[in-house]
Order: sequence, then structure tokens, then C-alpha cells
Amino acid sequence: MPEAINIARKFAQFTEQWQPKRIATVNDYDVRIAKIEGEFVWHAHDETDEMFLVVKGEMKILLRDGEVRLQEGDIYVVPRGVEHKPVADSECQILLIEPTDVVNTGTTGGERTATVEAL
Amino acid sequence: MPEAINIARKFAQFTEQWQPKRIATVNDYDVRIAKIEGEFVWHAHDETDEMFLVVKGEMKILLRDGEVRLQEGDIYVVPRGVEHKPVADSECQILLIEPTDVVNTGTTGGERTATVEAL
Repeated sequence: MPEAINIARKFAQFTEQWQPKRIATVNDYDVRIAKIEGEFVWHAHDETDEMFLVVKGEMKILLRDGEVRLQEGDIYVVPRGVEHKPVADSECQILLIEPTDVVNTGTTGGERTATVEAL
Repeated sequence: MPEAINIARKFAQFTEQWQPKRIATVNDYDVRIAKIEGEFVWHAHDETDEMFLVVKGEMKILLRDGEVRLQEGDIYVVPRGVEHKPVADSECQILLIEPTDVVNTGTTGGERTATVEAL
């Protein structure tokens, strides 16, 4: 019998921050979840939009010309090519929708680049 | 200044059931929300998977060989081509991720077919 995927139970299975986990796929898109805290690196995804949904906590997405504040139940889609920097003062749980081949650090790369594992 | 989209506030803006509303797009995918209650029609989407996320309440997705029960915070992806019938005993709020051109009744069509409006 097929079973639903419970987001909260998936979050309970890991503690690492800034390490997106794939919990489902929709065609060639990933549904990813991540725990984030502190500041990420400035980066952009030149080939795709990226959807953020805050599941728990709050975060900001810094943009070069402003910032977006997200609380629980808020969505924001960063348009392709737009530089952004996710920031969370305390741990925040987020869900991401983006193509399967998207790298978390976009065109910036570097040590914060993570391999997306299935959970 | 760009603003986040609050899912609960979007749900507060309409009462119709089985009428999906587009609240965001990610490339050529829609983020849709809908209020559902009762039984929908059996249908399939031959060209695409379809992601369900229960935001509030509970629902079932009937399949020809079983059913999936979803509660708040549960995700289920109906694979392309798989016949399914969404059912909710009482009103349930759902979020859907699927390509922009997806018709809610799939290849079944008929009077339950809805135009997806932006909200």
C-alpha cells in the first residue's frame, strides 16, 4: 500500500544544517527539505527558479536590492539568475522545489556545496 | 520590496471547492492551492506526476489498487498515468505542484474541469 510522506517525520531524521535532502520527486523536479541557521553564501541559479517554503521558524532571503522575510507557511520563488543569500537567525526548516540537477550554491560553488541525498 | 506569499492568507481569499488557484510559479510549474470536500472524479495525468501536500485537514487519494491517507503536513506524488480519485470527508486545504498546463480532471474531462485562476 503506498504511503504518504510526512514532512515533520522527515525533518526528525537528521540534524545537519545546509544539507538538503530529497524527500520526493515530481517529474524531473526535487522536493527537498533542509535545516538552516546562520548565513549562506551569495549565489544564483542561472537556469531555474527556486521555490522556498518555510515549514518551521523564520528566515530571510537577502537580495542585492532588498530582502524577503519568510515566516511559517510563507513561500517565495527566487527567479532564475537572481542573486540571493538565505539567512536564518535561529534554526529554520525549509522545503525547496527545484529541478533535480540544481546545486545548492548555484554558480558560486565552494565549500558550502552539498550533495543532495534521498531521505 | 518583494514579499513572501502566505499560504493561509491565500486560502482566506476564497471559498469555492475543487477550484485550484495559482499562487506562484516555478519555471513552467504551478504552485496551486485548493479547498476540497467530498469526492472528485477518477482521472489520470498521462504526461506528468502530480504532487499533493495537505496544508489543513485530511484527505484520501483513492487508487485502483489501494488508497493513500494524507494528514496535515503529508505529501504524496501521484505518478504520471496513474488513475486516482481525491476524496475528503470534510473540507481539506491542499497545495499542488504540477506543470502549468495540467487540467485538474486530466484525461477524464467533464463538468468538474476547472480553469486555474491566479490568486
